[in-house]
Amino acid sequence: MSQPVSQKPQSAISPQRTEDFPEWYQQVIRAADMAENSEVRGCMVIKPWGYGIWEHIQQQLDRMFKATGHTNAYFPLLIPLSYLEKEAAHVEGFAKECAVVTHHRLESQKQPDGTMKMVPTGALTEPYVIRPTSETIIGAAFARWVHSYRDLPLLINQWANVMRWEMRPRIFLRTAEFLWQEGHTAHETKEEALEETERMLHVYEEFVRDHLAIPVIKGEKSERERFPGADITLCIEAMVQDRKAIQAGTSHFLGQHFSEAAGIQFTGRSGAKEYAWTTSWGVSTRLIGTLIMAHSDDDGLVLPPRVAPQQVVILPVTPKEETRAAVLEACQALAAALRAQTFAGEPVRVQVDTRDLAGGTKNWEWIKKGVPVRVEIGPRDLEKGSVAVSRRDRGLKEKEFLATEEFVSGAVAMLTSVQDGLLARATAFRDANMVKIDSLEAFEKYFTAARPEKPEIHGGFALCHWAGSAEDEDRLQKELGVTMRCMPFGDEFREEGVCFLTGAPSVRRVIFAKAY
Amino acid sequence: MSQPVSQKPQSAISPQRTEDFPEWYQQVIRAADMAENSEVRGCMVIKPWGYGIWEHIQQQLDRMFKATGHTNAYFPLLIPLSYLEKEAAHVEGFAKECAVVTHHRLESQKQPDGTMKMVPTGALTEPYVIRPTSETIIGAAFARWVHSYRDLPLLINQWANVMRWEMRPRIFLRTAEFLWQEGHTAHETKEEALEETERMLHVYEEFVRDHLAIPVIKGEKSERERFPGADITLCIEAMVQDRKAIQAGTSHFLGQHFSEAAGIQFTGRSGAKEYAWTTSWGVSTRLIGTLIMAHSDDDGLVLPPRVAPQQVVILPVTPKEETRAAVLEACQALAAALRAQTFAGEPVRVQVDTRDLAGGTKNWEWIKKGVPVRVEIGPRDLEKGSVAVSRRDRGLKEKEFLATEEFVSGAVAMLTSVQDGLLARATAFRDANMVKIDSLEAFEKYFTAARPEKPEIHGGFALCHWAGSAEDEDRLQKELGVTMRCMPFGDEFREEGVCFLTGAPSVRRVIFAKAY
Repeated sequence: MSQPVSQKPQSAISPQRTEDFPEWYQQVIRAADMAENSEVRGCMVIKPWGYGIWEHIQQQLDRMFKATGHTNAYFPLLIPLSYLEKEAAHVEGFAKECAVVTHHRLESQKQPDGTMKMVPTGALTEPYVIRPTSETIIGAAFARWVHSYRDLPLLINQWANVMRWEMRPRIFLRTAEFLWQEGHTAHETKEEALEETERMLHVYEEFVRDHLAIPVIKGEKSERERFPGADITLCIEAMVQDRKAIQAGTSHFLGQHFSEAAGIQFTGRSGAKEYAWTTSWGVSTRLIGTLIMAHSDDDGLVLPPRVAPQQVVILPVTPKEETRAAVLEACQALAAALRAQTFAGEPVRVQVDTRDLAGGTKNWEWIKKGVPVRVEIGPRDLEKGSVAVSRRDRGLKEKEFLATEEFVSGAVAMLTSVQDGLLARATAFRDANMVKIDSLEAFEKYFTAARPEKPEIHGGFALCHWAGSAEDEDRLQKELGVTMRCMPFGDEFREEGVCFLTGAPSVRRVIFAKAY
Repeated sequence: MSQPVSQKPQSAISPQRTEDFPEWYQQVIRAADMAENSEVRGCMVIKPWGYGIWEHIQQQLDRMFKATGHTNAYFPLLIPLSYLEKEAAHVEGFAKECAVVTHHRLESQKQPDGTMKMVPTGALTEPYVIRPTSETIIGAAFARWVHSYRDLPLLINQWANVMRWEMRPRIFLRTAEFLWQEGHTAHETKEEALEETERMLHVYEEFVRDHLAIPVIKGEKSERERFPGADITLCIEAMVQDRKAIQAGTSHFLGQHFSEAAGIQFTGRSGAKEYAWTTSWGVSTRLIGTLIMAHSDDDGLVLPPRVAPQQVVILPVTPKEETRAAVLEACQALAAALRAQTFAGEPVRVQVDTRDLAGGTKNWEWIKKGVPVRVEIGPRDLEKGSVAVSRRDRGLKEKEFLATEEFVSGAVAMLTSVQDGLLARATAFRDANMVKIDSLEAFEKYFTAARPEKPEIHGGFALCHWAGSAEDEDRLQKELGVTMRCMPFGDEFREEGVCFLTGAPSVRRVIFAKAY
């Protein structure tokens, strides 16, 4: 037998979720060895375990984008300042967070104190900004590519890094540099562009639900929260365990703003010149932050199997040298039997941890890393033909002893059960923390009541009738830290009522929440 | 039947290879719609067909890196200037081509002429450079991660964009921004680091040979051509059709230079503090340029099946409306039968081109895009149960009429034959253009003789005994445009002789060539 897991070391996460949620989040990331802050302000280093999750997110989304007719391409990192200026709302929205390249070489220069120092030289006649998003530079390419309605639709995606100089960075959720995909499409008609905007929102919802095991609400942003330069911004909003919202993805209908700014013109069916209708949509490494906050617990990360870099970890228990070889062989045989099976269309991902470390240490490492299933095999298990199986989504003491064959034949079902269970749990939590609120008094109470003893617990999703102005939204944010997350699509939100602030009539409830 | 391919339109590449090789290269890229220059100086837009090739290069290399024990991670795009300065040779080597970020916001400012303009504000106290390569920033991370010999080896790879401000950019081969992978590893001993350096060079050789169908020569760079900061730079050198060399990949043994600069220290087995031994290795989108120059012809791109975004294109020939549906159905059935098969471990990639365009136009488009196999199906083929098959590696008029079943059952063998044939052709060409040269006179003649009428044809690989200095190399480059490509590893290059320039003794021949 391995060391009993009940010997809980100090490595469980401290503080716990209810003590200090933001700090718990940082500690989960550290304990799982996923990422760390770098010496570059607001920029993170994504370590192998974190990057492995991103690779699975990428692969699966990429497949979904291709299945909906998109192809990948790559556009320049740098954007001429004059391009950004072409769309007024756009440059206004991003100006405050642009990293600007002004020089193209370095030279060694003598300093007043006599030392030599490298200084920027070769000033550029026109500065460049590092892309905060690529509408303008991709728009310029589309203008070159599109001539006739036959060239449309143009359905392009880019996997890239982008940069927004964040004043209050938070690892994965809000970093100066982040990795993302940005879809950019151009269409002949407004209707087609609107359809595309909705199609990709649906792809995001499906992906986040089926792969990340997080239920999201689809809806439209208020004017105040729109993407700079968009006519309509759609979004998916997730709830995490402190009941705050995270915008997990957005899809924008850009109207003809960017095609007019960039000159994406084509000869239409009538022979007349027309401007294309464009969309853009994106998700980023922020999804990893959402994932962590949605599922993890006070022992560390909890990963849905579909995006776990390893789905099963096998831990050989080798107390005696004479049985060591047999145990290791059995572990490798088990790994091979598992890899021969398919979960969600891919071979099961298994690692045998043969490192020369104490069993308890190893076990704790994998708990903190959130591996869905851990299997221990020792000499006595070998004799009995059994394995000791622990599921990350269950309590730490719930270890099951299964006949090896039984475990192998049920492994895929077990992974499915973990995946589905996480979604069910997150859905139940979200639903339990979504309430209809119909007065300002109730609204204020909902978002402030928990404050005194539990500063980290924040109401939930308040479903409200709303007919207020952008200024009213400003005030709610300033006074309560609450923003309108979206005007949700679902029929369950449609009903007549009156705005809790202005008393004006309303035909559907919107969602207010605190948000990351 | 489709339109006869003998009606060669003007869309074949002009100029031809023997007329103007560099311009032919640009025209192949344009005709295949792979990439284009952007408005950002020296930066390219990689269009879907070019990016599709990069995706296959990535996937296959990534598998090889993982099979050799490496994992992916991601490090910041920006490097503090002070980091770059830590390794003297390194900063010296890259200073002239660094894009420098000096500000982090934009503000609207009134110009003398009364207009408003965005100008950079928020000056940074320490400027950042956009990574030209990541040794320094990854070294800083490694210093945080490595404490004991048990933490080694550290085997990390990064897929990323990098930036080097090139004065003479050439699309794919030398661009200001390019995509690449950079491996960075840290080891306990010098021997292990040397082994890693060689292992990855071997991975590159294998990849370029087996996937890109290009034979390369492995060797070591002279001191003059070494990576700034490396003790040893190994490389693979390819020959392209104008007989010039392209450095297709490099692997560097960095000694302890970067670990001393960054402080990658660990407690060794003896208990004493030691510096790690590091390596780095990389290939880039330059491989796509190499691929184009190695295989393409005067009709456009020629792609090895293993990296072709589509391996088979099916062209429905639909002269009459009444047979149209049946032809399209047969095309889709054929596509399904092909996709059910596996080439090089993956389902065959097939596209049915159903666009409403003339058959000749479509056919020419796919010729120019270099798709390995084109299949035409028309009403008469349907009646006969046959298909018309054209291989891109054969002459344009060589169309084979095969029974559909025969084609399907032989398709994988046909793709293999195209793949192998391209490698055999490139190898024969390279071998035919590699000559032993033993006098300065012969050397000069070899690299200048072809000049008068064929300015684009450049000797080939000159195998020479060499014992000259870095200054001698400088002179050869200045006078003849020739550089030492590498000191090759192969036994076939080992023999005693005397340097053709200095007369000093030598124990192996090295390779001189003109190069991109």
